[in-house]
Amino acid sequence: MMSKDQALIAVDAMGGDGGPRVVIAALALALSTDPDLRFRVYGDEALVRAQMDLFPELAPACTICPAPDVISGEEKPSLALRRARKSSMGMAISAVKTGEADAALSAGNTGALMAIAKLYLRMMRGIDRPALTTILPTLGKNGVVMLDLGANTECDMRNLVQFAVMGAVYAQSAMGIPRPRLSLLNIGTEEMKGTEDLRAAAALLRQTEQTAFQYTGFIESDRIGQGDADVIVTDGFSGNIALKTIEGTARFITNLLRRAFSSSLRSKLGFLLSKPAFRLFRVYLDPNNHNGAIFLGLNGIVVKSHGNANVSGIAQAVHLTAKLVRSNLVNCIADDLDMFFSQASNKELQA
Amino acid sequence: MMSKDQALIAVDAMGGDGGPRVVIAALALALSTDPDLRFRVYGDEALVRAQMDLFPELAPACTICPAPDVISGEEKPSLALRRARKSSMGMAISAVKTGEADAALSAGNTGALMAIAKLYLRMMRGIDRPALTTILPTLGKNGVVMLDLGANTECDMRNLVQFAVMGAVYAQSAMGIPRPRLSLLNIGTEEMKGTEDLRAAAALLRQTEQTAFQYTGFIESDRIGQGDADVIVTDGFSGNIALKTIEGTARFITNLLRRAFSSSLRSKLGFLLSKPAFRLFRVYLDPNNHNGAIFLGLNGIVVKSHGNANVSGIAQAVHLTAKLVRSNLVNCIADDLDMFFSQASNKELQA
Repeated sequence: MMSKDQALIAVDAMGGDGGPRVVIAALALALSTDPDLRFRVYGDEALVRAQMDLFPELAPACTICPAPDVISGEEKPSLALRRARKSSMGMAISAVKTGEADAALSAGNTGALMAIAKLYLRMMRGIDRPALTTILPTLGKNGVVMLDLGANTECDMRNLVQFAVMGAVYAQSAMGIPRPRLSLLNIGTEEMKGTEDLRAAAALLRQTEQTAFQYTGFIESDRIGQGDADVIVTDGFSGNIALKTIEGTARFITNLLRRAFSSSLRSKLGFLLSKPAFRLFRVYLDPNNHNGAIFLGLNGIVVKSHGNANVSGIAQAVHLTAKLVRSNLVNCIADDLDMFFSQASNKELQA
Repeated sequence: MMSKDQALIAVDAMGGDGGPRVVIAALALALSTDPDLRFRVYGDEALVRAQMDLFPELAPACTICPAPDVISGEEKPSLALRRARKSSMGMAISAVKTGEADAALSAGNTGALMAIAKLYLRMMRGIDRPALTTILPTLGKNGVVMLDLGANTECDMRNLVQFAVMGAVYAQSAMGIPRPRLSLLNIGTEEMKGTEDLRAAAALLRQTEQTAFQYTGFIESDRIGQGDADVIVTDGFSGNIALKTIEGTARFITNLLRRAFSSSLRSKLGFLLSKPAFRLFRVYLDPNNHNGAIFLGLNGIVVKSHGNANVSGIAQAVHLTAKLVRSNLVNCIADDLDMFFSQASNKELQA
């Protein structure tokens, strides 16, 4: 008998830099704190079994599903689509479509994952395009949901508004915020700033009543991490620029820090003394602790882990996936979309 | 008699958060290390004189030019244009046009500064739009010139290519790099990534011979500070997002650091020990040490200081302005534009 809290996740064991070695260890780690997890593990049977043998406690929670093919990290999405059917990634997503699993998780090729997920699961009614979505850390009480992070190079007003509705539901599901504060990323906060599509989306969000979110206007990118917003909506180009700039700047600064601390015997001693305090700092900045992005807008949950995530990073993505399954994310998005589009002025905004 | 190295700068004394108090002190500081500087100081005569009295060494290097009006930080560019003629900002830019000064410097309203500079100085032959340009610190040997940082919300292929030519000359003038490595900011390094305009600009830069720069392909925003490129060209929307994300992330991390260091007595002691090493770290991250942005593409040099720059920050912008005057920036750009557009395939790229 399935417990109410059971979450059955289809896992692509072959994706990511570490492959089955890291993925299987991550499943064991995740299971140790959430015994209601169940996995269908897709990949090379011999490799998967060899890793599973190291974690005997996994056996009762896992079904091994042999997949003859692997989508590589460099493969173009168009080529990946042709080989999807027999690949670990494609088979994991297919399991969501057939109902064999509640959600899919992969650390593989992002472009291929999106293409296959779009083909197998199709877009939700009312949504034109999927949005790559993640939660970034902030100095506030909770993180900030940000979308689109690169699924769509160009986005029009309709895309942005659809992303807003989906992003708000995601903040409710993943962070438990009843009525998230939502902003549009722009290069200034004044009404006349930004592209025509941004201004049109802002005008529409300002007018719309009965939303599951509170629209709080434009936000500039220097305030992404300040905790001013629970959801930030942007086009995929700008979102990707912002996300990677955060990553690059964090790396830049920690590199400078390392140089500063190792510049003299005295500063090395200072580092040793401060080390326990720095552990907290590292926990906060380590992307493994915020791992897991999702393609919103599909008829099913597909979570993408960072390719270079470590064991605890992938376990983090497993927990996120389970949370989204248990909060019934896809149905909640469908309900909110219905509510949003049912308002007279928003009818023409659905796909 | 003017020395060859003399640089005469028209200074808007009223711009920026600190006004004449900070600006005048900055001129004195700059003059102390570069005695060939000369200033025309525009602003409220009483306020300027009161500050100048504190730095008697400034008197022989300065001409006070009373300006009855001030453009505020919130003023819309369209309104600022109407009041430009009698404002400290407008009069400083006008001095560049009439030849009374070699360059103008202001810490005031960026939008107003651009609008007035465009109206008074006009675009250079061959250039459609000005690009806001600055130098960001990197982990490499030199900084990286980045443009456009927000002057143009949308940029087409022609704008991007024109920015490339100008940005390369700027890297030569401001950083002394003979043949800068130039990249286009994109959300991936593969040829098919990004907008149509980006891909077209890349194709053109790849083909062009006899450039004053070496085109090295697309660059992603996580590598801006790595020293891989000497010039990074982007549209004003993405450039502004990247710039402000760097600022916000740096603030975010230094805030976390402060929390880490003050979390226990032990870490406070560690901080005290490491403090001298951190001074270097701060010097590197302090925006005052990289202060000064320029609108490239105008018939004249107009440098914008950060509004909240301190005395040493504005002095830094003064030194940058003098460097650009002495390297004959505007003529060098004109020459390189001529060379670039004279190539058969590039004729249609000029304004």
